[in-house]
Amino acid sequence: MQAILLSIGDELALGQTVDTNTAWLAAQLAALGISTRLHETVSDDRRLIAASIGWASTKADLILISGGLGPTEDDLTRQALADALGVGLIEDAASMRTLETFFRSRGYAMAERNRVQAMCPEGAAMIPNPAGTAPGIRAKLNDAEVFVTPGVPREMKAMFEASVLPFLREHAGGAKTILTTKINTFGLGESDVAEKLADLMQRNRNPTVGTTVSHGLCSVRVRAEFDDSGRARNELSDTASQVESRLGPIVFGRDDDTLQSTLIAMLTERGKTVATAESCTGGMIGAMLTDVPGSSAAYLGGWVTYTNELKSSQVGVPPELIERHGAVSESVVIAMAQGARERSGADYAVSVSGVAGPGGGTPEKPVGTVWLALSTPDAAVARCARLVGNRASIRDRAAKCALQMIRLTLIDESLDNLRWLAKNGKQA
Amino acid sequence: MQAILLSIGDELALGQTVDTNTAWLAAQLAALGISTRLHETVSDDRRLIAASIGWASTKADLILISGGLGPTEDDLTRQALADALGVGLIEDAASMRTLETFFRSRGYAMAERNRVQAMCPEGAAMIPNPAGTAPGIRAKLNDAEVFVTPGVPREMKAMFEASVLPFLREHAGGAKTILTTKINTFGLGESDVAEKLADLMQRNRNPTVGTTVSHGLCSVRVRAEFDDSGRARNELSDTASQVESRLGPIVFGRDDDTLQSTLIAMLTERGKTVATAESCTGGMIGAMLTDVPGSSAAYLGGWVTYTNELKSSQVGVPPELIERHGAVSESVVIAMAQGARERSGADYAVSVSGVAGPGGGTPEKPVGTVWLALSTPDAAVARCARLVGNRASIRDRAAKCALQMIRLTLIDESLDNLRWLAKNGKQA
Repeated sequence: MQAILLSIGDELALGQTVDTNTAWLAAQLAALGISTRLHETVSDDRRLIAASIGWASTKADLILISGGLGPTEDDLTRQALADALGVGLIEDAASMRTLETFFRSRGYAMAERNRVQAMCPEGAAMIPNPAGTAPGIRAKLNDAEVFVTPGVPREMKAMFEASVLPFLREHAGGAKTILTTKINTFGLGESDVAEKLADLMQRNRNPTVGTTVSHGLCSVRVRAEFDDSGRARNELSDTASQVESRLGPIVFGRDDDTLQSTLIAMLTERGKTVATAESCTGGMIGAMLTDVPGSSAAYLGGWVTYTNELKSSQVGVPPELIERHGAVSESVVIAMAQGARERSGADYAVSVSGVAGPGGGTPEKPVGTVWLALSTPDAAVARCARLVGNRASIRDRAAKCALQMIRLTLIDESLDNLRWLAKNGKQA
Repeated sequence: MQAILLSIGDELALGQTVDTNTAWLAAQLAALGISTRLHETVSDDRRLIAASIGWASTKADLILISGGLGPTEDDLTRQALADALGVGLIEDAASMRTLETFFRSRGYAMAERNRVQAMCPEGAAMIPNPAGTAPGIRAKLNDAEVFVTPGVPREMKAMFEASVLPFLREHAGGAKTILTTKINTFGLGESDVAEKLADLMQRNRNPTVGTTVSHGLCSVRVRAEFDDSGRARNELSDTASQVESRLGPIVFGRDDDTLQSTLIAMLTERGKTVATAESCTGGMIGAMLTDVPGSSAAYLGGWVTYTNELKSSQVGVPPELIERHGAVSESVVIAMAQGARERSGADYAVSVSGVAGPGGGTPEKPVGTVWLALSTPDAAVARCARLVGNRASIRDRAAKCALQMIRLTLIDESLDNLRWLAKNGKQA
């Protein structure tokens, strides 16, 4: 079974209200093995709603429509569905009695406009509303089953659970099991990731494998859809393991894992601690690390040495190093990391100094040039990253490079896995 | 002109990724007097994308498609558009040169898969990408103008502004003038703001006034729609001024202004500097301030004193104060702010120490208890905030309280304007 979801309402089409129904419904359907092919948000325009319903009925077996069942002038779903079905609206006696009872029991007079809520397209059926006044509607158009529910999330959910779900459970038939997982990476671009997974990403494969990039992180989504739930689990796990082994150390976690949650867990497990000395990231690395509950077990704290004076007075960078090499340089980040490690007593310290832009770039050190260093109990290592994008993305990627540098060092993997870091000591 | 927006991607259709492009685009179009009739989210299915484009071209004059231009197997918008146009794809020589130059300039080999990004439906035109590798596409289908942009919000926005907007400005013509502005506040809840603006928020009013809350900031949207552009400007300005005067000092800016951009501008204008000493916010205040280009004129830097040891060794909090009152206390945040001000040489220093949760709460200091202090050339003042929500929102609100505290002090307004701060010295 394949579904199309329609949300009706000007406030949604104009982007003034965030549509939370769609994601909820898509998740409910996925759990039943029904995939959502498309969802559509349509403004309060009777002809357009009717045209959308008609088109959807040629593309899917199941159409779930929410919104536009209220009593006001701009609630037009009921009429539009009748138009799409090519029928008129007739008053449903049972629904009218329910409406009258509802208002009487609350001591209100029923406004005349509410009568429209008892109108049903000829040949369709009304669905009781367990949580409000507007009944839903069920109809058949071409080969598609059509369900209309109110747009108010509470009413939509109650009606879905009471009346739509039982139908779907019965008819989604053989109900396939759909399982998904997400493998999170940082260190390669999307096209490099895709090249390593080319055969797994072929369109006709099951499980399917796809990539998504968000804030510099490339995630690999794996989705298994099988009749047998045991097989779905095995195939998902098998494909996910293949993805992980091909991508190697840039993989930092699954599903909701973040770089920082993984890192804090690793440090905590090993009883190790870390400190930070930040210039262009201005506190972002500290903020990311402390975003993790319980981070105080592994993160001691750090310095935001935004000015050269603070770099010298607070983490002990010799002023002459800054004068000779500039604040964005290998020797300065190494001195920052070593100073932070010594003064904090942490096992590891990471430091960052770069040109985040938009101003401040020079021919030798253009915007996006970021030096990072890691001081460990044994040594200090520095790398230069050349990052692209605006100020926000350069800072974000720099902070993530710092976290991934610590993580790679903890697992004895080469920093070269982070593709945008030039080799040690070489200023790209 | 009427528009249909299409977002392409499994991750969006399945509800795994939140689509932020649509609301942004709908707002941009509204400002030009173009209404968005419908938007559609389509999974990575070439036939379905082609069918959606074809259908949309019979319902609107303008189709904006975002997503599916990447280099991988599941990026299918380019091919689907060619299918809808009934043509093939041909390599665009100029785009290929741009791609090759992009990779060469960064010293990477171009992955073979990237070549597809230079393919263009026959008869269509490529749109340069000012912020990434995938060019956009412009085509004409039936009577509709079709623009395809990447799905990555930063690239989509840059391309929209550089290439789509100029076209729309020229062709949208004749429509009513719709002008909007946003008045940004921090310090009161949405219902308190709405109460002060009740008469302005009535449904039938023009300009319309509405409130939106995002990450603790309450913004008031004002929208004027008039035939006459001069009248639209005057009415917008008049209503916006009323909103600002009713809300008073909690208003920190308009439109894209942030608390931090306002604050950095104020400090820079006055030639004043600020430093930070953060515990539970872990660097977020520094990160927010340095998010502003040119922040180095006003922000010197700071400390993330996450452990008690660093609070004492780095900003000079006497260990006995911590022992007596706890790290989350009035005397400790005052000592942190004073230490940070003295050691940095800044005119102002702000400090934060709190219980961000989920663990660590006690009956006297439950999760959400956050002490903040501000040290100025004249005095030091501390306040206790009782914040609600999860770890992320408690930390975010605490950082914003710190910024608003500095701002209110700079403009000689009472900290009592920040409703969730208890009075000086009183631990609520």
